[in-house]
Parts: sequence; C-alpha cells; structure tokens
Amino acid sequence: MEMGSANNEKISIFLRGWWFMKDLPKKILAKVVEIARQTKTIGQDDPRRVIHSLKVGLVLTLVSLFYYFQPLYKSFGVSAMWAVMTVVVVFEFSVGATIGKGFNRGLATLLAGVLGVGAHHLASMTGKVGEPILIGLFVFLQAVVSTFIRFFPKVKARYDYGLMIFILTFCLVSISGFRTDDILELAQKRLSTIFIGASTCVIVSIFVCPVWSGEDLHNLVADHIEKLGNFLEGFGSEYFEESGEAEKRDGKSFLVGYKSVLNSKNTEENLANLARWEPGHGKFMYLHPWKQYLKIGTLARQCACRIEALNSYLNSQIKAPDEVRQKVQETCKTMSTESGQALKELSLAIRTMTRAADSPNTHIINAKTAARNLISLLKSDSWADINLLLVVPVAAVASLLADIVICVEDIDESVTELARLTKFKSQNLNFSNCKMASDEGKNKQLEMNGCPDQVIISINLTAPATDHQEKQSQSQESVQDTRQNVKV
Amino acid sequence: MEMGSANNEKISIFLRGWWFMKDLPKKILAKVVEIARQTKTIGQDDPRRVIHSLKVGLVLTLVSLFYYFQPLYKSFGVSAMWAVMTVVVVFEFSVGATIGKGFNRGLATLLAGVLGVGAHHLASMTGKVGEPILIGLFVFLQAVVSTFIRFFPKVKARYDYGLMIFILTFCLVSISGFRTDDILELAQKRLSTIFIGASTCVIVSIFVCPVWSGEDLHNLVADHIEKLGNFLEGFGSEYFEESGEAEKRDGKSFLVGYKSVLNSKNTEENLANLARWEPGHGKFMYLHPWKQYLKIGTLARQCACRIEALNSYLNSQIKAPDEVRQKVQETCKTMSTESGQALKELSLAIRTMTRAADSPNTHIINAKTAARNLISLLKSDSWADINLLLVVPVAAVASLLADIVICVEDIDESVTELARLTKFKSQNLNFSNCKMASDEGKNKQLEMNGCPDQVIISINLTAPATDHQEKQSQSQESVQDTRQNVKV
Repeated sequence: MEMGSANNEKISIFLRGWWFMKDLPKKILAKVVEIARQTKTIGQDDPRRVIHSLKVGLVLTLVSLFYYFQPLYKSFGVSAMWAVMTVVVVFEFSVGATIGKGFNRGLATLLAGVLGVGAHHLASMTGKVGEPILIGLFVFLQAVVSTFIRFFPKVKARYDYGLMIFILTFCLVSISGFRTDDILELAQKRLSTIFIGASTCVIVSIFVCPVWSGEDLHNLVADHIEKLGNFLEGFGSEYFEESGEAEKRDGKSFLVGYKSVLNSKNTEENLANLARWEPGHGKFMYLHPWKQYLKIGTLARQCACRIEALNSYLNSQIKAPDEVRQKVQETCKTMSTESGQALKELSLAIRTMTRAADSPNTHIINAKTAARNLISLLKSDSWADINLLLVVPVAAVASLLADIVICVEDIDESVTELARLTKFKSQNLNFSNCKMASDEGKNKQLEMNGCPDQVIISINLTAPATDHQEKQSQSQESVQDTRQNVKV
Repeated sequence: MEMGSANNEKISIFLRGWWFMKDLPKKILAKVVEIARQTKTIGQDDPRRVIHSLKVGLVLTLVSLFYYFQPLYKSFGVSAMWAVMTVVVVFEFSVGATIGKGFNRGLATLLAGVLGVGAHHLASMTGKVGEPILIGLFVFLQAVVSTFIRFFPKVKARYDYGLMIFILTFCLVSISGFRTDDILELAQKRLSTIFIGASTCVIVSIFVCPVWSGEDLHNLVADHIEKLGNFLEGFGSEYFEESGEAEKRDGKSFLVGYKSVLNSKNTEENLANLARWEPGHGKFMYLHPWKQYLKIGTLARQCACRIEALNSYLNSQIKAPDEVRQKVQETCKTMSTESGQALKELSLAIRTMTRAADSPNTHIINAKTAARNLISLLKSDSWADINLLLVVPVAAVASLLADIVICVEDIDESVTELARLTKFKSQNLNFSNCKMASDEGKNKQLEMNGCPDQVIISINLTAPATDHQEKQSQSQESVQDTRQNVKV
C-alpha cells in the first residue's frame, strides 16, 4: 500500500514535470510578449526615456575614446577609467540631477583630495610604524563624522552623494599614499578625469534634448490642480443626476484622477530639490521660486483629501431621496462646478504662466455666493417636514463642498503669490491703471502686493467708481464676508 | 552733488561692511550652536545613527588593512581599492539595503565581467582597426539597453543599482581590454575584491547592532495606526466638550499626529522593498508578508484622509449650538472613542504580534452599534423644531465618523489577514474549541478563514448556544447588518 502510494507520487512528480516542460515555451513566449508590451508602454508614456538612453550610450562612447586614441591615453593612462565611471554614475535623467551629482562629485573629490594629501603628509612625518596607525585613525574619524552628517535632513536632500564621494576619495587618496609616492599626481589625475566626465555629462544633458526637473515640477503641479478641477466639475452631475449608476461611472477617468495627487509629496519635493540645481531655461529663471510650487502642492493635497471624503459619498448605497436632493441640488452643483472651473483656470494660468484677467477669480466668487445661498436655504423653513436622517448625506456633501471652496480659495491665493514672485504675464490688463495708482504715491504697497490685484482697489480709493468697478469691489467685499460664513 | 552721493555711497558700503564684520563672530557662534543642537537631536531621535556611523568607520578601517599588510597587498595590489570603494557604496543604514546593494553589485559585476570579456574577445578577432569600432558599438548598445531597462518600475525598485554597476563594469572590462592583455586577471581581481568588501559590509551590518528595514516597517505601520487611534480617542471630547478653546488645543500632540500618516506611502514602499532582501530575524521569517503591511498602510492613509476632513471641523469657527450637540454628543463620542480604541488595540496586536482575544473587535461592534443608534436618533421627531442650518456641521461630523468606522473595520480585516498570514500568537484562546469544530469536518473552511474567527460561528452551528454565545452571535449579525446602514 505504502509502496504503491510512493510509486503514485513518483508518477505524479514526473507528470507535473512533463506538464511544466510542455507549458514552458508557451510561458516564455507569454513573458516575452508581456515584456515587449511593457517596453512599448514605458517608451510611449515618456519618449524622453528613449532619448535619455541614447544620450547615455552616446556620452559613454565619447568618453571611452580616451582609451582608444593614443595621444589622449598617454596623458591620462588607466586613470581614464575614472571618466567612464563618472559618466555612468553622474548622468541622470534630468539636467538638475546631473548637475547636482556632477557638482557634488567634483567638489567632494577636490576637498577630499586636498584633505587626503594633507592627512598623508601629516602621517608620513611620524615614520613607517606610526604612518598606517595614524592614517587608519584619520580614515576612521572622517568616515564616522561624514556618515553622521549624511543624516542631517538638509544635507541628505542635496549633498548626500557628495558626502559619499568625500569618504571614498579621502580613503583612496590617503590610503594609496601609503603605497604610491606620487600621490599628488594620483589626486590630480582623478580630479581632472572626473571633471572631464562630469562636464561632458552636464553639457550633453543641457544641450541635447534636455529634461528639466523644474519644468516637470511646473507641469506636475498644474496637472494635479487640473485633475482636482476635473473631479469637481463632474462631481455635481454625477452625484445629483445619475445616482445609483455605479457601473457607468467605472469608465470615467476624471473621477479617479485625484488619487494620484494624494501621494505626490515625495515626487514634488524631489523635483524641487533637483530644480534648484538647474540654470535658467525657457520660461524659468535661475532661482525660480520652486518652493512656492511645493506650497501649492501641499494645498492641492489637502483639497484632494476632501475630495477623497466626497468620493465616498458618490459610491455610497444610501442616497437622500429626490425631494431632498432637489432642494440643494442647484447650489451644490454650482459650488462644485464653479470650484472645478476655478481650479482648471488656475491650472491653465500656471501652465501658460499667464495671469487671469479677473482676479480674484470669478468662479471662486460664484462658488462662494453659492455657499452663501446654501446657508440661506438651510435657514429657510422648508425643511420642517423632512426626516432629518434623509438630509444628513446631502448635508455632509454640502459641508464638504463648502470646505473645498475654502481650499480652492487657498490654492488661488497661493497661485497668485506664485504669479507675483515669477511675474506672470498679465492677460487683457491695462497697465496704465497701474501707473495711475503709482502716481498717487502707493508704489511701495503696489510693489508689495503685486500691481494687477490692487488696481481695482486703488482705483476705488482715488476716483469715483464706475458701475462696473463698484460691482467688482462689492464682490471683493463679499469674498471677505463669505470667508467666515462659508464653513457651514 | 553727484560726487557727494558717490562718497555717501562709499561710506555706507564701508559701514555695512563694518557691521557685517562686527556681527560675524556672533553669527558664526549662533550657527555653531545651532548645528550642535541639531546634531544632538538627530543622534537622540535615533541612536542607531551614531552606531551606524561607527560601524562604517570600523569596516572602512578593516578593509583598508589590505593596503597596510604586505601579504594581503601582494595578492591584490592596487585592486584592493575596489574593496574600499565597495564598502563606501554598499554599506547602508539597514541590513536590507546593504544586502540588496551588495547582491546587486556582486551579481552585476559577475555578469558584466563575463559579457565584457566575451565582447573583448569577439572584438579582438576583427583586428586592430575593427576592435575599437566594435567595442564602441558594444558599449553603446549595452548602455542604451541597460539604461532603458532601468525605467521599468519593478527593476527600478530592486535592481536599479545593479544595472548601473552592470553598465560600469561592462565598460571598464571591455574598454580596459583594449590596453591590458590580462583582462581576465582584471575581471577576477575586481570581482574578488568587491566580494570581500560586500561580504564584510553584510556581515557587520547583520551581526553588529543590526537595523532591520522589516522591523522598521512593522513598527511604522503600528505607529501610524496608533496615531489615528489617538486622534479618534481624543476627538469626541475635543469637539463636543471644549469647543472654541483653540489655544488649549495647540499643545495636544495627539491632534496632529495623524498628519505624518498622510504622506507615508513612499517610506512604507521603500522599507517593504528593502525588507524583502532581509533574512529571517527575531519575530520575522524570511519572506514575511511585507506586502500586507503596505495594504494596511494604504487603508490607514484612507482613514487619515477622513480624519483630515474631520479635523477641519475641529478648527471651524461655526459650531452647532449646545442643544443640537447634546442630542448626538453621546453617540458620536462613542463612535469616535470606540473606533480610536479599536485602532489602538489593532496597533498593539501588530506590535506584539498577538491576536486579540475578541475577534471581531468588540470596540468596532460598539462603534457600529453607536452608528446604528445615530440612525435611530436622526429618524426620531425631536428635530422638527430645530433650524437645519445648525444641524449641518454636526451631521457632517457624524457622517464622517460613520465613514471612519467603516475604514476602521477595513483596517481590522486587513490586520486579521496579516495575523493569519504570519500566524500571530493567540491571546487567551481555548484551542480545544478549534479542535471540536474541526472534528465536524470543517477543516477546510477553518483553514481558509483562520480558526479563531470562526470558533463562535462553528459552535453555533454544532451546539445549542449559551447566553454568552448567543449575545456574541447577535453582535456578529449586527455587524453584517450595520455594514450597509452605517453610511448615513
């Protein structure tokens, strides 16, 4: 009986092996197809990846010429491999990362080289017995200190790689000195080959189809705000009109776009760190206020968090009955749509670096007016005969929307600040008004607040308001007014 | 006049320069004090950082012995510096990162070395003219392909460093071959020194005060859930009792702890990636289900998002009047506190890897009962005479809390799954019940669902229920019941 089962087992193992072998070609083929499909997707998603790969190949081949050409090889010798190494290690996807790494590598090598030579000289004065002990002590001490410094958050963000290279070079130079006599030549060769490698990388990354981290950050933040706008623009109709049709909703990408905003902090911070290495390019000056993008990003994430809470009501099974919904439908839809449109306009303003003609944004004013209407509506007596339980989901949605309106306003303020810092172009704005106001001796204030925002107020201070101006000034006041009440 | 102003300017520049010089020592002192303070904080926050720095110093000093001792230097020569380089580059803070980098470096060097030698031989057959051209072509092609492969998300997460080393080694070996005849010796020396450096790092990182990424992930997830629990436990009293006292709230850390959960995705994924390299240690086996921690983390972030929305009501100026609040105060406080306690229990369960005696968690059952009470309360007529506007904020808070109860339940399920996967110890559980149920031929089901959860139901199926059991089974049903209704 037992032998029989052992035999069966053997047969079953054999069979399984046979099936595995039989399926193998199919499996391999499927894997190959899958990889090919993935390759295509990765290339199509961002064609700059293909270009970057070609650039790396190009620079490596260029730098390896040092080995092939006798005159070049004569002057550097085996040290030429440091140039190859530098290219592999320094050449990153974006210009900022490449410059950052190149700078770190160059500076760290220089500093560590000088210190290493110094340590070697100091140690060599103590004689053949003391030398290795003293060098060992130096190596130990600088490794401990440098490694600890790498834990400082600010250092980690910008100079982590530099410190690693510092430790490396210091060890190499000071230890090599124990065996080589021409330690200065070693240090100088290492430095010059690294300089050649790094500068080749930087030049190619800047002048051949450059990928700018700053531009990526700029577009990413604009994208995120647009995604939030898309959700809000569509939310009203989704919630109030086509309730219960969850299947239809699956295909709508605008309802899930906001999710990518939620976890974007790290990417944004990383891009901002890299962008700071980049020289001025295109629309961006050197020292463009990248930090302001991070602020906008933080506010966008706060808004996305509210939207996440809102989204759960979209998928909730229990909905308020039509009679309840109809009462608030109009105001809530206005709040949502206008907020969405405001965000989309802000996104466009960032993307094109153009300041919108109306500031503060009319969509935000509309959204706030809707929020105020909601308050009046809730105050009215028409609710007395309605079961409170049925009102709660709608009330929660309305409350969240009101919260989102505040978020949108914060984002608007933050984008206005960005516009001020980076001097966005103004759209349809008559700058003679600016001049007029400045004539009244308010230059300082205008400078502080950015002219275009203040034009209307300044005009109101200095001249009798026309109808149009009065209307705008009223809406300005109402903005201040609603700011407190909007939080229903 | 103009000369006078130029003179004035010179004096002002001189004065400014003087002030700057006068303030310099003070500024430098302030900076030094600031750095010292920061150093102390970084060291105290995580003393493992100090230990890590010492470990790096130790290993570097150890490896540099290759240079000092004649017998060791004889066998490796200048190649010994590869060992030093390997240590600097491979030795990371955690065991997982060190093993991952060491493995990547070792394997990539081996593969690229073999391919590089192959490429060199192939090229050398074409003669002195064709050789550099063919090698250049090989270098270009492999650099392009390898660089592109680095963009694959799965490769980037685990083998990015390996691919970099692959490009590096391939270039070095194939290009060096053009100048050196004993290319095999070069490859072999590079490989053996890298092996020595990497294995020293791995051994020291495992056996001298190890820092495990897996353990960090485990603690991080438990911490996050505890932070959410702390907020919820405190929220009820904060919102309903001490409203308007925003100043008092500033000192309460439990109200802001949840914010660190919101942006934790990247850290968690990073730790999980590193943890997969680690061998079994302490409470964790090799191939511990780290992915399950990521699932719990995702749910925790969803919950934190709801809490963020809830938090905005805490700081809102407009609050419902006492009469409205008193009506829902009790149920809302129960929902919040019980959810908080449930989360804190789950956090403790993860931390100690012990399964709680009551499953499903009685706190969750209480929270759900409260949610059901809230529904009855809202259905009642006692609201007819209250202005709806005043109810909305409270209704929104109640609705968010109900949403959070669902989140907490999801987290509970996810932790239960983790307990099943990692076989948490059971607390106060009589396993003879398990045996009894399994005697009834339900082994399969029990295996699938994890025994302790099913004990109660199984008993109800096989024996007349006692009072206690009946009560528990009822609450089980009510869990199913509320699952649909809890979303008010």
